[in-house]
Amino acid sequence: MEFADKIRIPKLNGVIMRGPHIAKSSNGTLVITGHHLIFSSRADDVELWILNRNIDIIERKLNSVTLKCKDFRIIVFDMPYIEQAASVAASIESLMLTDTEHFHHIVGNKVAVNECRSPFDVQSQCEKLIAGDKMWRISEVNKAYRVCSSYPELTVVPSNVDDAMLIASAKFRQNGRYPVLSYRHEKGSVLMRSSQPLVGPSSKRCKQDERVINSVLGPGKRGYIIDTRSIANAASAKARGGGFEMETHYPQWRRVNSALERHNVLLDSLSKLVEACNDTTCSIDRWLNKLNGSEWLSHVKDTLNAACLVAQCLNQEKASVLVHGSESTDATLVLISLTQLILNPECRTIVGFESLIEREWLQAGYPFETRHKSGCYNAARTKQSSSSSSKVFHHGSGATFLLFIDCTWQIHYQFPCCFQFSTNFLISIVDHAYCSDFGTFYGNCEADRKTNRYARPNLWSHFDQKKDEITNPLYLPNSNVLWPSVAPFSIELWREMYLRWSINQNHQKIYAKAIGDLMKHHQELKALAIKLRDEAQESSNKYI
Amino acid sequence: MEFADKIRIPKLNGVIMRGPHIAKSSNGTLVITGHHLIFSSRADDVELWILNRNIDIIERKLNSVTLKCKDFRIIVFDMPYIEQAASVAASIESLMLTDTEHFHHIVGNKVAVNECRSPFDVQSQCEKLIAGDKMWRISEVNKAYRVCSSYPELTVVPSNVDDAMLIASAKFRQNGRYPVLSYRHEKGSVLMRSSQPLVGPSSKRCKQDERVINSVLGPGKRGYIIDTRSIANAASAKARGGGFEMETHYPQWRRVNSALERHNVLLDSLSKLVEACNDTTCSIDRWLNKLNGSEWLSHVKDTLNAACLVAQCLNQEKASVLVHGSESTDATLVLISLTQLILNPECRTIVGFESLIEREWLQAGYPFETRHKSGCYNAARTKQSSSSSSKVFHHGSGATFLLFIDCTWQIHYQFPCCFQFSTNFLISIVDHAYCSDFGTFYGNCEADRKTNRYARPNLWSHFDQKKDEITNPLYLPNSNVLWPSVAPFSIELWREMYLRWSINQNHQKIYAKAIGDLMKHHQELKALAIKLRDEAQESSNKYI
Repeated sequence: MEFADKIRIPKLNGVIMRGPHIAKSSNGTLVITGHHLIFSSRADDVELWILNRNIDIIERKLNSVTLKCKDFRIIVFDMPYIEQAASVAASIESLMLTDTEHFHHIVGNKVAVNECRSPFDVQSQCEKLIAGDKMWRISEVNKAYRVCSSYPELTVVPSNVDDAMLIASAKFRQNGRYPVLSYRHEKGSVLMRSSQPLVGPSSKRCKQDERVINSVLGPGKRGYIIDTRSIANAASAKARGGGFEMETHYPQWRRVNSALERHNVLLDSLSKLVEACNDTTCSIDRWLNKLNGSEWLSHVKDTLNAACLVAQCLNQEKASVLVHGSESTDATLVLISLTQLILNPECRTIVGFESLIEREWLQAGYPFETRHKSGCYNAARTKQSSSSSSKVFHHGSGATFLLFIDCTWQIHYQFPCCFQFSTNFLISIVDHAYCSDFGTFYGNCEADRKTNRYARPNLWSHFDQKKDEITNPLYLPNSNVLWPSVAPFSIELWREMYLRWSINQNHQKIYAKAIGDLMKHHQELKALAIKLRDEAQESSNKYI
Repeated sequence: MEFADKIRIPKLNGVIMRGPHIAKSSNGTLVITGHHLIFSSRADDVELWILNRNIDIIERKLNSVTLKCKDFRIIVFDMPYIEQAASVAASIESLMLTDTEHFHHIVGNKVAVNECRSPFDVQSQCEKLIAGDKMWRISEVNKAYRVCSSYPELTVVPSNVDDAMLIASAKFRQNGRYPVLSYRHEKGSVLMRSSQPLVGPSSKRCKQDERVINSVLGPGKRGYIIDTRSIANAASAKARGGGFEMETHYPQWRRVNSALERHNVLLDSLSKLVEACNDTTCSIDRWLNKLNGSEWLSHVKDTLNAACLVAQCLNQEKASVLVHGSESTDATLVLISLTQLILNPECRTIVGFESLIEREWLQAGYPFETRHKSGCYNAARTKQSSSSSSKVFHHGSGATFLLFIDCTWQIHYQFPCCFQFSTNFLISIVDHAYCSDFGTFYGNCEADRKTNRYARPNLWSHFDQKKDEITNPLYLPNSNVLWPSVAPFSIELWREMYLRWSINQNHQKIYAKAIGDLMKHHQELKALAIKLRDEAQESSNKYI
């Protein structure tokens, strides 16, 4: 076992666990394994398991080791001696750097194959999306990921476009991300995504790409290309070889810029938010200033606003929409998925939301591995130690997926009966997206998972067994479009997420659980009443 | 009818109702009566009744009349002609000024006597408070309100203090508000309130007052006098003839200053908050700045903090507490009642909370009439038109009672299962405290209501008939002390209250109603199941 070398102290007694998020410190034993840190104290009835990969940064001061986790929690361990603290810190540090492939290799073989398979295979998702519409077809042009490494092998494209055209279009699009179908709304208006066209400073064109995109609109119809960059950013991308569709070559499409922030900017914003949420003793004035200064709520508002814009194009104007930014693996995916959440009631069910994440994040190539390699504490530290204060890229880290889940929560908050899932489901998804025993969020794209996912169990199957915990007991299916309010005071801080360690929310959890228990008890009672009635009926029949 | 003279236009057709809080304007008929404005539109299926006394200010511009209400709502009526608008505005303005006595006289005789009587008579409340404790007695010294006009006729005082001493103590206390018992906590620690002693610049003393207060503490016991003013304010009150207890004369008591804001400062703060809540189009940045600038949440936090301090003295230190400020009709009452809410589970029931308001606000002489004569819009206007910008007193208006209900809501929010009532109950109480068909909040003190209350129905009886709407379906009695978190992010804006007109909260209301309906249905089903089981039992017995 290679792990053995990394773990200098596998077990240490007399460790005190404390921290800003821990009401009462406890004295117990710390165990370091290849996957988890385990702290247990029999005297205080405490047992805590932390996935090594949940640890964002580790700090040592004398005999204290502070862990700052990707789920925002901060834990301090005080060791009896300084040398022990140094060894523990070094062990954890080296385990944190162990790559996931390694990790999967070790835990992998415990899992049955049927637990590993995702219930959402690409073929059936594509078929469901087309639903017999002759306008669209499933293309195998990306077989073996030859055309676009971040796409799945099967994609849905216009029927009147052949694979050769797609290959040409892919060459004209950053990282080969040619235009594909995401969602078919009523009356033929559709939602598509791609990456930016490689127009460049000399304003190159690609007739095949034009054909792919223009063929989507019928004669006389108009569409919108929503660019997730500002006009200035799109222009500077053009100067660097990227760019945007020139209107002369895509005459039926109108370009609209709806600028959203980049993944690293979001992570900086999240760092500031979490820093504010950890400052439990400040005044209201300072708290509101910090909350405001983090700009997180503004990013949420801007994102919801942009999604409403896309949804309006599709629903009110009955126009088709193509969304892209540059690489289109961040802001584009948020817009594409939020729009569907607003328009399509199916996305508000448990399976529908899981499927949405599969299609528009996992299969669409959101680089989970890279974006979630470091969390907000690491980002804050990197920024501090860097000389240029505003443009640190945290090596590709980002918080776009969390932003999407937060926006989902906002809509859930505004329409609490319209979702089959509870907000626990959303928290759990975020946690698993950052670090997980499951293979679902493994790697950066479908190709990464293709070879490896079957070695680790599937998160969605896990949720199937936890229905009680993730179901909204008061779900009342609503087939309407849900237009979220984007008034400033409609945007709420997601306390269950960001303040879960800072505030004791037990009483709120008891309340939420009471609703679930009541519903469960009610259904049992209903079944009992029916049984009693039937028995009474039967017994009266017997004696007549 | 004298009202007839004031109403220049009793009925007007072709009026358009619109406003920042109204999603869709409607065309209909405006009717002005002595008590209400009624707007109805058959075409748009709208019928709106507004109590004249709910109108805080009225503004006319050409043919438009804008009403800004004490419940924060803003409504605009467009009349066909300017002259009509002028007449309507003049009619409403003169009706707004009609005093309540007048009003009561006209609607009074419709009501049966048993609906008018408060279920909380002073005698039985006093007996309940004493509960056989020989340390305390009911004094009739205030018969006919001779000693203190803002107290009820019966008060609970130490047994070993006679009425002559109380009279002397009352002369030494502002407005005769001598020390009385509010709450008996476990193990003999008690909570009392009074007004400031009239110590004055020459440091006068009153031996009878010392006797009244010192007799509360047994030998060797210590107590706290919590002064709701800052040290500087208490000192300046002393210079003006008021002051605080000199420690040499009250040797067992320790004075602590826990400064809370004055009623008019709170109203200014509320004005700013409501102004922010009405600005639906601003950015998140501006919204958070305005929210912060209003300082409302800081006042809430400070108040909860102070109440926790009082509760800690009683519960942790087992010490008795006397609370006062200057007149002690505002901040003192908030502290006294919040402390009980924290410590005493009975106050968290519907009847217990009603009783708390009766004892500590109505019978304690909170001047509802004066404080609620004008609302936050009037305060904002008065302040604008006044030259001195920070010290306008709005003729005695204030928002202390709302602050108390907001603090109650904060605890309810943090402990949602621990209250028998829902937050609707709190909203309804606030609304009735500002303007109401009921006599409960009439006048400024018990003496005012003594002669008049039986002419108007009682709010608490009304709530008895609305149990469904005000009950928390998930109430789980909790006999513990509830310590609210006062971390900055634990203090929430009460959206249901301040944003009720600015945001459509229908979906949240549907959710809350679904919980109530589920519980009701569940109880019916339970009864049915029991009946079925009993019938089955009976029928099987019959045939054996």
